[in-house]
Amino acid sequence: MNSKGCHGPSRPHPDETRSGFSMERLEPYRLQVDKALETWLPPAGTSPGAIHEAMRYSAMAGGKRVRPVLCLLTAEAFHVNLTLVSPFAVALELVHAYSLIHDDLPCMDNSDFRRGRPSNHKVYGEALAVLAGDALLTEAFRVMVDGGRAVGLPDRVILDGISALSGAASSRGLIGGQTLDLAAEGQDVDLFTLQTIHGGKTGALFKAAILLGALPSDATSDELSALDRFGDLLGQVFQIIDDVLDQIGDFESMGKTPHLDGLHEKATYVKLLGVEGASRAASQKAEEAVSLLEDLPDRETGLLIDLIRFLPTRRA
Amino acid sequence: MNSKGCHGPSRPHPDETRSGFSMERLEPYRLQVDKALETWLPPAGTSPGAIHEAMRYSAMAGGKRVRPVLCLLTAEAFHVNLTLVSPFAVALELVHAYSLIHDDLPCMDNSDFRRGRPSNHKVYGEALAVLAGDALLTEAFRVMVDGGRAVGLPDRVILDGISALSGAASSRGLIGGQTLDLAAEGQDVDLFTLQTIHGGKTGALFKAAILLGALPSDATSDELSALDRFGDLLGQVFQIIDDVLDQIGDFESMGKTPHLDGLHEKATYVKLLGVEGASRAASQKAEEAVSLLEDLPDRETGLLIDLIRFLPTRRA
Repeated sequence: MNSKGCHGPSRPHPDETRSGFSMERLEPYRLQVDKALETWLPPAGTSPGAIHEAMRYSAMAGGKRVRPVLCLLTAEAFHVNLTLVSPFAVALELVHAYSLIHDDLPCMDNSDFRRGRPSNHKVYGEALAVLAGDALLTEAFRVMVDGGRAVGLPDRVILDGISALSGAASSRGLIGGQTLDLAAEGQDVDLFTLQTIHGGKTGALFKAAILLGALPSDATSDELSALDRFGDLLGQVFQIIDDVLDQIGDFESMGKTPHLDGLHEKATYVKLLGVEGASRAASQKAEEAVSLLEDLPDRETGLLIDLIRFLPTRRA
Repeated sequence: MNSKGCHGPSRPHPDETRSGFSMERLEPYRLQVDKALETWLPPAGTSPGAIHEAMRYSAMAGGKRVRPVLCLLTAEAFHVNLTLVSPFAVALELVHAYSLIHDDLPCMDNSDFRRGRPSNHKVYGEALAVLAGDALLTEAFRVMVDGGRAVGLPDRVILDGISALSGAASSRGLIGGQTLDLAAEGQDVDLFTLQTIHGGKTGALFKAAILLGALPSDATSDELSALDRFGDLLGQVFQIIDDVLDQIGDFESMGKTPHLDGLHEKATYVKLLGVEGASRAASQKAEEAVSLLEDLPDRETGLLIDLIRFLPTRRA
């Protein structure tokens, strides 16, 4: 078990489950991500004020920081100093934040809320929301270079990281998934297509998060292959549970309007498999992911294993 | 005079002026940019088809390729093999193409035409246009890494290039200028503010184009400083003439609807200085830029000098 991940809570947390995992064990990592975001984002008050306010509204809006935390957990499992990957962790969150802003736009999902607050365009208007998304995406790559150099990452590793993240965020990854998702609205979609959509929309960034964490390490190519498959499964588990929560969740626990998928006639795992079937699929994929990590005996994967076993039971 | 730039036309071109410069001298460079774009963009038919079609619609729409051509001209002046900077040239054009797609959106400038054709969202709808812009911006950084490595650029130079381009395209550069431009609509704007707006909207990418061309060379820090100032002046000349053409131009020569600036109550150099005054300012700045290049005796800056002297007289 990874010692840094063991800042256990003194009282049971509402998320605590029979897996013995509590979200509070991720809190030190989440705080480290928030601190790194504060370090690498342009400071509040940077001119022009409007765009930097809009950028920070979404990037500093809290949230679970799932992707950067996964990056840090993987880095730790592979004995990488967490400061070294902090620019990568920040870049992952900035790409995620940009994609949410653009996703929420009226011409896209038309969502009025995100993370319990009005979405970016509801506060700053559509034009500034488009620009704030663009700026966060641009900033992600600047942080990888300027931040990566500042923390002493080797040039080769920074370039590998930018290649991986730009590919994951590209028209063959994240944006490709969003494109397929747009095309699938109101269509009958089978399980294979749904997995392709989410392989882009969610899986690509999850895989990148895991890979970026291991990039500065001495990981072998076999280990990187295992991590790639692990990231893919983790993304699927995460998305399946997201669909379940959209079905059974409420606004308070989700921070956004539930049941939107149904309103938009979006294909979901719940629609195809039912709540029970989707939950079962999530558990099976989680176990498959765990077995991949258990095949890496030289790595400290305990916390990652606990996390992935917890995911199918999460309720927020 | 640079030999590669001397593929002179056999008959006078409509653009030919008393400066002795003809746009046809840039044609070999423009063709090289188009070829590099074809090499580094995902091929037509890449899945998902819709997003790649929308990306190529804007990126392969022709146009003068001003920024990447400037990058190649600077590279040649500094004795850099043009193949080495071709990924940088492509990235510059992709960033420019993305910014035009997002600029044309209904929530931004609401332009129906671009480069003589319906703008991206008029053909593909707003959602796909937002995504196509996002994808081109993402692709710019992927091409710099993957393309830069493929042509043999040193890691350090690729990272310097990404740092420069991401900074130029950022909320303190291009996007910063767009933000100020949004805020200035309908306002009384003085010359200083107008220069700040265009220093971001146009100047930042022009400066990056010039810098990226010289990055793989042995340019001294004094030379890079001169190029930085040169790029700034060049951007100003280009923007002033753009404003003049918006005032006096017609659809056919511009490929977009003229007089839009007036419709949107945008501040322009023409509004502040008049057509005559703006043209005079452009000529003065062009001469200042020329004198900077003339102070670089070891570099082959003849074609750049001819180009910048031609710009104040351009009519398309």
